[in-house]
Amino acid sequence: MSFDPRESLRLALNPRSIAIVGASENPNKIGGRPIAFLSRFGFKGPVYPVNPAREQVQGHRSYTSLAALPATPDLAVIAVPGEMAVQAVDECAAIGVRVAIVMASGFGETADPHAHALERAMVERARSVGMRLVGPNSQGLANFGNGAVPNFSTMFLDTPAQDGPVGIISQSGAMSVIPYGLLRGRGIGVRYAHATGNDADITACELATVVVEDPDLKLLLLYLEGLPDPWHLAQAAKTARERHLPIIVLKAGRSIAGKAAAQSHTGALATEDRVVDAFLEDLGIWRAQGMADLIDSVELYLKGWKPRGRRLVAISNSGAVCVMTADAASDAGMPLEPLADHTQTELRKILPGFATTTNPVDITAALLSNSRLFSDILPVIAPDPAADAFLVGIAVAGTGYDVEAFARDTAAFAQQTGKPLVAAASQPAIAEQFKAQGIAVFPTEGQAIRALSQFLAHDERLRVAREANLPILQAPASELHSNHGDAPASAHLPDPVGEHHTPVGGVLRNEVDSLAMLGQRGVTVVAHRLCQNEADARAAFDALGGSPVVVKACSARVTHKSELGLVRVGITDADGVARAFHEISAAAARENIVLDGVIVAKLVKGARELMIGAHRDPIFGPVLLVGDGGRNVEVMPDLAMILAPFTVERIERALRRLRVAALFDGVRGDPPMDIAAFCQSAAAVGALISDPAARVLSLDLNPVIVGERGAGCVAVDAVVFVDEGIPK
Amino acid sequence: MSFDPRESLRLALNPRSIAIVGASENPNKIGGRPIAFLSRFGFKGPVYPVNPAREQVQGHRSYTSLAALPATPDLAVIAVPGEMAVQAVDECAAIGVRVAIVMASGFGETADPHAHALERAMVERARSVGMRLVGPNSQGLANFGNGAVPNFSTMFLDTPAQDGPVGIISQSGAMSVIPYGLLRGRGIGVRYAHATGNDADITACELATVVVEDPDLKLLLLYLEGLPDPWHLAQAAKTARERHLPIIVLKAGRSIAGKAAAQSHTGALATEDRVVDAFLEDLGIWRAQGMADLIDSVELYLKGWKPRGRRLVAISNSGAVCVMTADAASDAGMPLEPLADHTQTELRKILPGFATTTNPVDITAALLSNSRLFSDILPVIAPDPAADAFLVGIAVAGTGYDVEAFARDTAAFAQQTGKPLVAAASQPAIAEQFKAQGIAVFPTEGQAIRALSQFLAHDERLRVAREANLPILQAPASELHSNHGDAPASAHLPDPVGEHHTPVGGVLRNEVDSLAMLGQRGVTVVAHRLCQNEADARAAFDALGGSPVVVKACSARVTHKSELGLVRVGITDADGVARAFHEISAAAARENIVLDGVIVAKLVKGARELMIGAHRDPIFGPVLLVGDGGRNVEVMPDLAMILAPFTVERIERALRRLRVAALFDGVRGDPPMDIAAFCQSAAAVGALISDPAARVLSLDLNPVIVGERGAGCVAVDAVVFVDEGIPK
Repeated sequence: MSFDPRESLRLALNPRSIAIVGASENPNKIGGRPIAFLSRFGFKGPVYPVNPAREQVQGHRSYTSLAALPATPDLAVIAVPGEMAVQAVDECAAIGVRVAIVMASGFGETADPHAHALERAMVERARSVGMRLVGPNSQGLANFGNGAVPNFSTMFLDTPAQDGPVGIISQSGAMSVIPYGLLRGRGIGVRYAHATGNDADITACELATVVVEDPDLKLLLLYLEGLPDPWHLAQAAKTARERHLPIIVLKAGRSIAGKAAAQSHTGALATEDRVVDAFLEDLGIWRAQGMADLIDSVELYLKGWKPRGRRLVAISNSGAVCVMTADAASDAGMPLEPLADHTQTELRKILPGFATTTNPVDITAALLSNSRLFSDILPVIAPDPAADAFLVGIAVAGTGYDVEAFARDTAAFAQQTGKPLVAAASQPAIAEQFKAQGIAVFPTEGQAIRALSQFLAHDERLRVAREANLPILQAPASELHSNHGDAPASAHLPDPVGEHHTPVGGVLRNEVDSLAMLGQRGVTVVAHRLCQNEADARAAFDALGGSPVVVKACSARVTHKSELGLVRVGITDADGVARAFHEISAAAARENIVLDGVIVAKLVKGARELMIGAHRDPIFGPVLLVGDGGRNVEVMPDLAMILAPFTVERIERALRRLRVAALFDGVRGDPPMDIAAFCQSAAAVGALISDPAARVLSLDLNPVIVGERGAGCVAVDAVVFVDEGIPK
Repeated sequence: MSFDPRESLRLALNPRSIAIVGASENPNKIGGRPIAFLSRFGFKGPVYPVNPAREQVQGHRSYTSLAALPATPDLAVIAVPGEMAVQAVDECAAIGVRVAIVMASGFGETADPHAHALERAMVERARSVGMRLVGPNSQGLANFGNGAVPNFSTMFLDTPAQDGPVGIISQSGAMSVIPYGLLRGRGIGVRYAHATGNDADITACELATVVVEDPDLKLLLLYLEGLPDPWHLAQAAKTARERHLPIIVLKAGRSIAGKAAAQSHTGALATEDRVVDAFLEDLGIWRAQGMADLIDSVELYLKGWKPRGRRLVAISNSGAVCVMTADAASDAGMPLEPLADHTQTELRKILPGFATTTNPVDITAALLSNSRLFSDILPVIAPDPAADAFLVGIAVAGTGYDVEAFARDTAAFAQQTGKPLVAAASQPAIAEQFKAQGIAVFPTEGQAIRALSQFLAHDERLRVAREANLPILQAPASELHSNHGDAPASAHLPDPVGEHHTPVGGVLRNEVDSLAMLGQRGVTVVAHRLCQNEADARAAFDALGGSPVVVKACSARVTHKSELGLVRVGITDADGVARAFHEISAAAARENIVLDGVIVAKLVKGARELMIGAHRDPIFGPVLLVGDGGRNVEVMPDLAMILAPFTVERIERALRRLRVAALFDGVRGDPPMDIAAFCQSAAAVGALISDPAARVLSLDLNPVIVGERGAGCVAVDAVVFVDEGIPK
């Protein structure tokens, strides 16, 4: 048998009929809740409880077995535990069920090898007949658009459902419904709240590839602890970008402690966090750091705004709110430009003399005596070119103020300008009136600005991603038919701290070979000679022009030469070079290090030492690291991570965000640095790490000495690890 | 006449009788609201409306003038505008009123010089008879402990009052009541909500010196835009520390944009922000960055906890909440240590096999089937030594869960351990049950952790401040009887960016004189000679031992010598020194710079270039800056600011927080750096800037080259500005 796998996923979201294996009359049992929810949320198709002990379950006719059903259901919910769940999967397969949700826990999420094996067997048997599984350990799916809520979450009992433009997909049951509850509490409708559990077959990301097809969706929220199949997320993101559907991902386990907890929780793969950051950015996906980032700006995504920039104009009846808004906007990188002279002149005609008309606009407490001030100034501000977005802060109001008019006029103003607008009002009664007018309102200006800033930054990120239109990450061939949840790569993942120095395995090449390999790829490397004796060394000094040199050991057995006394820097005459040759040879002998020779290399000076590193991530593929270089790179890291494609534009964009970028254009009269040359070298390194024929596993060029503009850059040290088996 | 000025402030808080000048029958007018609030909030003493046009005002007998009152009121509220307010102040003075609140606006907060003059005159006339003023432009004071609420805020109309342990003092009217409203919304009682307005006489900080005397207060919140009288805050903080009363300050105008808005709002002085940070830290005051920091942890301060550390133990029924809690704790610098083996063994006896017993403790969804799990594990965890504080996360609950028991047992557990405990529950119904048990509950784990982290960090900051017991900042003699609100120093405040390079005025001394001055104070300076001719220069090279030298111009007319070609580095022979002498002399001549000679200085090598800067802040006094040095200090700043006293301990503590501190103990086999020597030099610089006799206004030692431990540190360049008029 063979089906379009996406078709099975679509059936999971929009089943025409649903069977529940392990159906219970008790709506608070796992086998009972889905049936209760299907009724409660208005699922229109046939519901087939399977329970040999009962004639009826919750008003539906019950069946003794799957085989006894009058028709093959589109979706089966398996609410029986352990071995019985495996058996139920077989029975589903036997009658041609295309997709099943396995709710039982006690499989891959435990430490028990038997449970892992059971999970694998279940998935393999399903796949062998083209059947797909959600779970195990899944709380279920939920589609409030059609009432297909085969789910047992307690949240749906207490929170009134309302279909809406937001979708949620989560590996965790709790995190499929906590955002649901928070959004519903803010009056926002939610269509999907899917919990995929162990992701043993269908993963959260694979499900996303189908969810993004829903034309009613305006925002998709994802909660992930592991990301073993980034290609599915890439596919979903591509479809979503084309549809202008933003995706926010809360990928938890950012920290060491969080990763450890995630591994306990779902056995999730611990992907290096900066790789995830770079990957999500390339896809135009916003990464939430926690629940607040996931939830607080949701309302802004639903407004249909087309923002043009980040310049904020703020309006309040409190000078203090103006000041705090300016601070918060500054924190968020949102400039406040003064209103145009003409606007200010008009505002001064309306506002009292002690009001402020620049930006923020402080109406002052005069609003109490004249409620019209607010309504009068908005049309004056609306056409001003200083604003890309607005904040309206109603510090205090109530008795004596025409709050209803403020809210109505603000809504009309937002409509008129078409620009993003947020309101801040700490008094619930005021906030309610603004909310009633469809305005996104927050209790503090800080929250309002943070939410607005995220929305604007995400919009910009999406724009960049759409323009770049990068080719999407492809699944490795081995993954296409294997179990994603058990990807074996995790053990090889580098340590997240200083990983560019941690070889991902493989064989170290000596420095001369490493430099040669890089030189062939177009990286300018330091002029050097490999010397086997004193005469070689003296000749090398002359051949290099007699200028100061570095003398160092060449060996495929050591990476940190300085610590072992195997490096001499700044030697200025041939005798010194000869002496250094002998000293280094002797030091190596003392340490029992067999040398391939001694390198005499030109001493290179430049504007700054930067670094280029690269490695292959087992899941995400080649990874490039660029940033500040020198010996302190591990303890004072200032590095950017880049995923393919390694274009100079992408490298430079990442590099320009670093702290060290403050030096690139020249400090205190220095000439600018040759960052273009550095980015070209980094791109060449990117090409090298991406070339399977080169078999490079990781490399580290540190320092790469960057000269002033036009002077290029030179790699003076190279550590390259290659795949075993390549002839040295 | 002469009164104890503190006594007048106490009267302002606890008046026995209150007159209202400009009393209105309309409770929504500025002159009407205070009378209405005095009745509403139960003020017991006599209330004297002054309104010549009425016999009665809001049920009180009205008087034609202040002179007609039957007794001198403790407090007068002046609710008439402009010149009339000034006249009312005179009348108050005439009958011996000790303190008055001037509510009228249109004074020092405007741009009108006449209004400023009026404000000054009003304050001077009051002071001349020993009378004190709150305001002008004050919304009024509010003491809900005794019903003395001479205030016109709309907030108090809509928000039911409840006396409690929190005090609020704000220069802004809005910010006296927005926190009030938010706290009341969370069920927290508030005693004071004072708005001091323009601070023309009594400032927010001076008022705080009296508010902190209230034995019922457990937390004081301050909102400030200007801090012209830090000595009052220092006095208040000292009293508060002794009473274990924490103070949180929201000093707005942190950013350039915020400062500009603050200046528009209240004409507040823009103090350099890092000075404020350092000052508040020394006082044990927490600085809120925005409203959330001011409000979100308030409840935790009221619990009476005595925290011991920052190690967190987290417990949840959701693995995802455990993971996100671990991430948030990691962000906040709160370690999660594993529970003791014994504890874990006991937990495993209770929890299902797939639960996690390390830390966080993941009870898993098994809590649904067995509500007792929660109650059973708490007593096992309570005595575990891994916890300084707890987070309990109830991800999802409701029907099927015994939430009431969870809340009750959590409260008992908190009581038993006596350790700080926060709960996270996104469902309002769950949160309510926890709140009802007196537990601090937050909608997300992120907010809970941030609030807990702030509370713990503030407690630690208070402990350090109490132990240090620093002498408090004294008011300059000129300030004791002057108008704080108009302190003239603002114009001289250094620019907040790179200000250590911006002289605060004064005369530049040349480098030789600067080095000599520092050498006399115990700073090791580079060995050098001042040379007037080639022979001097050659002799200097020999005298310095013939090792590599730096040759540079000596002049009191230039600071940035390198840019002008006035420096040669690394010269290794006498001929080179002679050549450099002539080149530099010629370059200076070309630039028309008169030299005091040419310096030949030993070239110093060391482990790292750091820097020491110092200046005198017109309000806060001497300020020391230490941090990473070299030419990039302005564009890649990594600096710590320190206020007096300049002890090596305080300097080192500040230094150790910097990014560059990662290098201090040696990287990759390097020996540790001589940070002790550096801190001693910095302390010597601190003594110099603090010594009025030295008349140093600002100085900048960059670089100070720090050697390995035991090798000391050497200042190789010095730029010193001294007060004019000192003989050179």
